[in-house]
Amino acid sequence: MRTRAAVALQAGKPLEIMEVNLEGPKAGEVMVEIRATGICHTDDFTRSGADPEGIFPSILGHEGAGVVVEVGPGVTSVKPGDHVIPLYTPECRQCASCLSGKTNLCTAIRATQGQGLMPDGTTRFSMLDGTPIMHYMGCSTFSNYTVLPEIAVAKVREDAPFDKICYIGCGVTTGIGAVINTAKVEIGAKAVVFGLGGIGLNVIQGLRLAGADMIIGVDLNPEKKPMAEHFGMTHFINPKECENVVQEIINLTRTPFDQIGGADYTFDCTGNVTVMRQALESAHRGWGQSIVIGVAPAGAEISTRPFQLVTGRVWKGSAFGGARGRTDVPRIVDWYMDGKIEIDPMITHTMPLDDINRGFDLMHSGESIRSVVIY
Amino acid sequence: MRTRAAVALQAGKPLEIMEVNLEGPKAGEVMVEIRATGICHTDDFTRSGADPEGIFPSILGHEGAGVVVEVGPGVTSVKPGDHVIPLYTPECRQCASCLSGKTNLCTAIRATQGQGLMPDGTTRFSMLDGTPIMHYMGCSTFSNYTVLPEIAVAKVREDAPFDKICYIGCGVTTGIGAVINTAKVEIGAKAVVFGLGGIGLNVIQGLRLAGADMIIGVDLNPEKKPMAEHFGMTHFINPKECENVVQEIINLTRTPFDQIGGADYTFDCTGNVTVMRQALESAHRGWGQSIVIGVAPAGAEISTRPFQLVTGRVWKGSAFGGARGRTDVPRIVDWYMDGKIEIDPMITHTMPLDDINRGFDLMHSGESIRSVVIY
Repeated sequence: MRTRAAVALQAGKPLEIMEVNLEGPKAGEVMVEIRATGICHTDDFTRSGADPEGIFPSILGHEGAGVVVEVGPGVTSVKPGDHVIPLYTPECRQCASCLSGKTNLCTAIRATQGQGLMPDGTTRFSMLDGTPIMHYMGCSTFSNYTVLPEIAVAKVREDAPFDKICYIGCGVTTGIGAVINTAKVEIGAKAVVFGLGGIGLNVIQGLRLAGADMIIGVDLNPEKKPMAEHFGMTHFINPKECENVVQEIINLTRTPFDQIGGADYTFDCTGNVTVMRQALESAHRGWGQSIVIGVAPAGAEISTRPFQLVTGRVWKGSAFGGARGRTDVPRIVDWYMDGKIEIDPMITHTMPLDDINRGFDLMHSGESIRSVVIY
Repeated sequence: MRTRAAVALQAGKPLEIMEVNLEGPKAGEVMVEIRATGICHTDDFTRSGADPEGIFPSILGHEGAGVVVEVGPGVTSVKPGDHVIPLYTPECRQCASCLSGKTNLCTAIRATQGQGLMPDGTTRFSMLDGTPIMHYMGCSTFSNYTVLPEIAVAKVREDAPFDKICYIGCGVTTGIGAVINTAKVEIGAKAVVFGLGGIGLNVIQGLRLAGADMIIGVDLNPEKKPMAEHFGMTHFINPKECENVVQEIINLTRTPFDQIGGADYTFDCTGNVTVMRQALESAHRGWGQSIVIGVAPAGAEISTRPFQLVTGRVWKGSAFGGARGRTDVPRIVDWYMDGKIEIDPMITHTMPLDDINRGFDLMHSGESIRSVVIY
């Protein structure tokens, strides 16, 4: 069949909207009509050419929601008509990683997904002239129709709006999951969020959900403050307005009983390795945990004195919020529908596929929190 | 009173054995007759002048065992005649750190201890000419008699031999505790120990105690192999004999079911920051934890790509094995007396105080695992 898609033909160029060929689902695969997709920084990281593992031509997009329209042989967990969210981190429930119970990083199809291919080593997309087009993060939601492995879709309730829950396919789950799955924040904790973009806001609402007492936001841009407060931020630090952000956090978290100070949990949502170090070093001596969420530039390294670890700080990271997609994503959709979490204020812009490049422009200018393409 | 002690008069010089003045215990303090003390790398780090926080003149030594001979006003938890192990990490059970239940790093007397002073800001030791001599790590076990805060002694059973259990005051607890308190290793785990000195051997016996399936030792010196095997090492890697020690560990831990490979837990017992990075990167994707135990040179930094953390590895550290001294040290003494752990083969040399500098020579030449001074 043919479908309309925004194709990344070359690194550093705008996406091109065109008709492409899409083969039907093979064994263990499903075809999904994407109804809405968010535009994420990770898409831009690859589109721009900064991603050393980027492959072209490809169809980007990994934060979608849609409806199953066809299933291949052997598919049992979803059927045509089911509403689903594509998962760039699949959940096979069979591999050593899934069965460990200790990680969400399913490894069933990791090798082929990284190469832009379906698990059988081929691609379902091609140009009208037959040139193969690569998949992206196993999702390719910048196409109106796409094909995914069955293990890479989460079945969700049918009354949830696609143009909001698509954001659960990446940003919402990444932020909230880092709090509840990776850090396992407990009621009464003191936490710091570095970077108040979309991920930072979702970490903040995760912290509110977890019952944190103090939610300190750190950002160079004071205009981020009102929205962050809306989601639960209790204190704001602008690093430009203090000499030493680590010391500022220690001062703010110190009490008459606890003169040491430092946060129980800190989250880097910037991708900046200098900030990641600050996040670690502002964690509380003895038990503070720092969670790296942001994606650093290729080759960038984090560093610190090992003394920071020996005196009890823990350095961790989180991918897709530590969420097992098929199990946890439907619950997060329920939380949205039940009003436990908010998404609507973060979707600042919507547009048709034809205008997708405007979504990247809005990201670059800092005007949007999240732009969503509605098909 | 007067006591004999080995005094560090200047950085980089041998210790000098001499008579010194010792004031009796003040409120909340106890005087202990040290019966035996181990000589640890940390003492040498300070003696050599490499420790930027080293203070001279001081009486080093922090790995002792002895008998309480006098208690100051208000002391209730020990009495003259009690056998004790001095604690360089005290346990006050009152401060924010102790009460958190999340760390062993009691902060009740941290500031004064770091300055070589008792909690009241003064020193009990002085030269016969009245020149003050500083305490070291709150212990100063290189003196036949010493004064410590009550919260810095662990009362232990009286049938345990001083010349063996003194090692529980640092090395044994540091190694075994890192396994059971910091890493919380579970039965069946695969673990790697970098550096097969005294700490490494104690990590190995901790892993055996915890029921680890695979205990891989890494050391440049193949002569360490037999002793490490005696304590439970199952596999040995000499980094000189393989191209890439991280890849070697991944290959060794890979199974037909788990093609990813990597260790569940890795321990750095070298203090070398390059090795600390290898230890992190040989931990299993998704859940592997790496524990820094070794003390790095002043100013040295650890580094890695944040991707290592984002894909699920955890970087931690351990000080005094995460042990709460007054609570956990007596249990470790019991384990020794019950034959659950071994200490005797690690005490390779004993000597009187007069020969203490020979203990440092044996450490430098690599001939000893642990030298113990018997008073």
